Amino acid sequence: MSDVNKVLECLESRRGEWEDLLCDFLRIPSVSADPAHAEDVRAAAQWTAKLFDDMGFSVELAEPEQRPIVYAESPRVGGAPTVVVYGHYDVQPAEDPTLWETPPFEPDIRDGSFFARGACDNKGQILPHILAVRAWKEAVGRLPLNFKFVVEGEEEVGSLLLERFLDEQAERLACDCVVISDTGMPGLDQPAITYGLRGVAYFEVRLTGPNRDLHSGSFGGAVTNPCNALAKMLGGLIDDAGRVQIPGFYDDVVPLSDEERARFRAVPFDEKAFFRSLGVESAVGEKGYTVLERRWARPTYDVCGVWGGYQGAGAKTVLPGQGGAKISFRLVPHQDPVKIAKGLEIRLRQLCPPGIRLEIVDLHASPAVLTPLDSPCVQAAERALAAVFPRPPVAIREGGSIPIVARFQQRLGADVLLIGFALEDDNAHAPNEKYSVQTFHRAMAVSARLWDEMSRQPGAK
Amino acid sequence: MSDVNKVLECLESRRGEWEDLLCDFLRIPSVSADPAHAEDVRAAAQWTAKLFDDMGFSVELAEPEQRPIVYAESPRVGGAPTVVVYGHYDVQPAEDPTLWETPPFEPDIRDGSFFARGACDNKGQILPHILAVRAWKEAVGRLPLNFKFVVEGEEEVGSLLLERFLDEQAERLACDCVVISDTGMPGLDQPAITYGLRGVAYFEVRLTGPNRDLHSGSFGGAVTNPCNALAKMLGGLIDDAGRVQIPGFYDDVVPLSDEERARFRAVPFDEKAFFRSLGVESAVGEKGYTVLERRWARPTYDVCGVWGGYQGAGAKTVLPGQGGAKISFRLVPHQDPVKIAKGLEIRLRQLCPPGIRLEIVDLHASPAVLTPLDSPCVQAAERALAAVFPRPPVAIREGGSIPIVARFQQRLGADVLLIGFALEDDNAHAPNEKYSVQTFHRAMAVSARLWDEMSRQPGAK
Repeated sequence: MSDVNKVLECLESRRGEWEDLLCDFLRIPSVSADPAHAEDVRAAAQWTAKLFDDMGFSVELAEPEQRPIVYAESPRVGGAPTVVVYGHYDVQPAEDPTLWETPPFEPDIRDGSFFARGACDNKGQILPHILAVRAWKEAVGRLPLNFKFVVEGEEEVGSLLLERFLDEQAERLACDCVVISDTGMPGLDQPAITYGLRGVAYFEVRLTGPNRDLHSGSFGGAVTNPCNALAKMLGGLIDDAGRVQIPGFYDDVVPLSDEERARFRAVPFDEKAFFRSLGVESAVGEKGYTVLERRWARPTYDVCGVWGGYQGAGAKTVLPGQGGAKISFRLVPHQDPVKIAKGLEIRLRQLCPPGIRLEIVDLHASPAVLTPLDSPCVQAAERALAAVFPRPPVAIREGGSIPIVARFQQRLGADVLLIGFALEDDNAHAPNEKYSVQTFHRAMAVSARLWDEMSRQPGAK
Repeated sequence: MSDVNKVLECLESRRGEWEDLLCDFLRIPSVSADPAHAEDVRAAAQWTAKLFDDMGFSVELAEPEQRPIVYAESPRVGGAPTVVVYGHYDVQPAEDPTLWETPPFEPDIRDGSFFARGACDNKGQILPHILAVRAWKEAVGRLPLNFKFVVEGEEEVGSLLLERFLDEQAERLACDCVVISDTGMPGLDQPAITYGLRGVAYFEVRLTGPNRDLHSGSFGGAVTNPCNALAKMLGGLIDDAGRVQIPGFYDDVVPLSDEERARFRAVPFDEKAFFRSLGVESAVGEKGYTVLERRWARPTYDVCGVWGGYQGAGAKTVLPGQGGAKISFRLVPHQDPVKIAKGLEIRLRQLCPPGIRLEIVDLHASPAVLTPLDSPCVQAAERALAAVFPRPPVAIREGGSIPIVARFQQRLGADVLLIGFALEDDNAHAPNEKYSVQTFHRAMAVSARLWDEMSRQPGAK
């Protein structure tokens, strides 16, 4: 029997034990946003650290007084590739407990799923990676790879400690690949590799006109109205074909290849159902692209907020002194947020009329992530997923940004493999969060196979 | 000695008496906005009614339990023209008393002015018209015209009772001219006839996109963003030359005549000082017009308020479900608010993209007012003003709207003569409201002469 089959047999034979372990993990209310749960957050870190300790890893808790980062390294396996596995033990607040069918921190298994806060996001996705390593150790006696686990406790509140940790420990974290399971898949039997995430560049635009609100009758027509200017300026950032009107905006955009477009078309997606679920009949968007292409692989411009003047009931005849907006651009590989910010400023200054003072505040930026489909880790994952699930994986992208993923890629210079197992209806961040029991076990099998596949590739780090 | 000279002599000989009367009037805190002053409002109505009663007018208080309208008719003078004189006895709240140098309802005469709430707005401007009639009666023994005085008590809170009164009593109020002194003049020695007021059409625009706020990463680019649409739509209502982009918007606009433009140029106005006082260096506006022309005599489009999505601190990556705005158009003669509303709807529907539901709420409308400069009442007023002030009057317009003026003009079908005596720095609606003692007496002399001038014109009503 091959090593990996021994591991799979081990995993299979102890299903109940793994389920109990996940339930123990889920019972810890490690809500990072709520200071009342600070002790629970540290308890979850300790719980996670103990797993590694039991496996003979060297473990440390970085920032132990805060929301600790559990950092665990396996004993050195000479000549084997090195993989960083990232996940998080903190969870979203449960919020209104009356909206939960069973209490959020008393895991319940029903209808084939674990119901608890953190079930899919992210305890039920990080634990299988840890347990697959454990099964390797127990069934085979040695590990196929060098493992460096990074399990943090503030993913839900911004990963500030981890950003610093990555900056400071980049050398120590050197690896061939970063594996993260914190994304989704299209269906229970349809696994996915998320090989692209959009980036983001987010700004606040503030316009100031006259030094006070004026009477629109006495002054209208003679004084530049900052809310009129705001509309023209925000409207002037995109044309009727949905193309962003910022100098150089598309210069560095990596065009979608024919192969990618074909892969997107293969992803099950019902456009009509999508619009129906949003209560709209159709939409405008960049011409020449499908809805999925626009969501996953094309840059966008969205007004996230806008304000100025009178917002109350009835009529107030005011020419406002100020107006403002929050705007975001979703970026695709290889757009540079710094270049976008410069282009935006040029364009807004062009559009800003006399009589208005313009201020642009750079609030937040993160580049896009793209993992080459021919990357060895993607190919290893494709084989591992195909061997476990009834269908081979689809290659998808995600329209949102996960800034920490870009940070991993930038700091470590390694490919990032995103293989996530959450379903659209798993209620991450909502009441009655759940995670399929079957998926939990499949994820372990995938992980066991992935370590095997990767061990056959030449290691560099 | 001519009749009018007898009247002027009478007015001159009893200056102290008139000043005492105004101070009595100003002592009544007839604040219409404040229910605590309801009795004071009625007391001011009674005080005004008594003046007319003493002059032998037939007087009635319409809506005596609310904020009564004082309606007073002089004894019939056969063959003489009929004039409606409008004013109001209610005043703005005094607000913070610590900002007043002397208490707002204890009139103080200093530096040549009455200081009290209501001094210029409007007690000090309506009283001279009443006293000029009284002097006619006392000095000459008969009145030169048929007078119908309408002095209301809720001008500062919207004139709702008066609107109904005008609708119901239009026949009884039939007249040759409506005289109103509730506007301003450029300087102490520079009287003005305000022969035009802009109208207004005010709307709320509401856009609805997806049935909830969405994540701008996962959905951006694939769903029409109502705040993006709002910017394009609001921006699309005006072009870069400052021309409103609504079908038919300019069709009925009466162009400014060369004579009017020359008259405007004659009005003292310092453009640089105007912009400096507003804290701006310059402004955009409709091309081909001066600042005063834009303020007084050209239609406008102003966004009075705009909202949508996230307005708080920091970045929230939301694709909002809704957005909205309040927009106003200032109208000039003879633009029809109903036609403007229809044109607006056509234009906004053109601009509204797929995926957005548009709703337009008509909040408020009033047409512009224009009194022909060759109207007999204007010419009578020009002579009366020129005879009293050191300089002849300038003909000006006002950019704001006084809906009740349009209502008088529409309901009674008569020209409206606006001869106001307030100065820009008389602090109407602000602490330390004042009114020049000299102007108060000049206003009486103007009124006495105006009645004389009008009596020489053929009467119709």
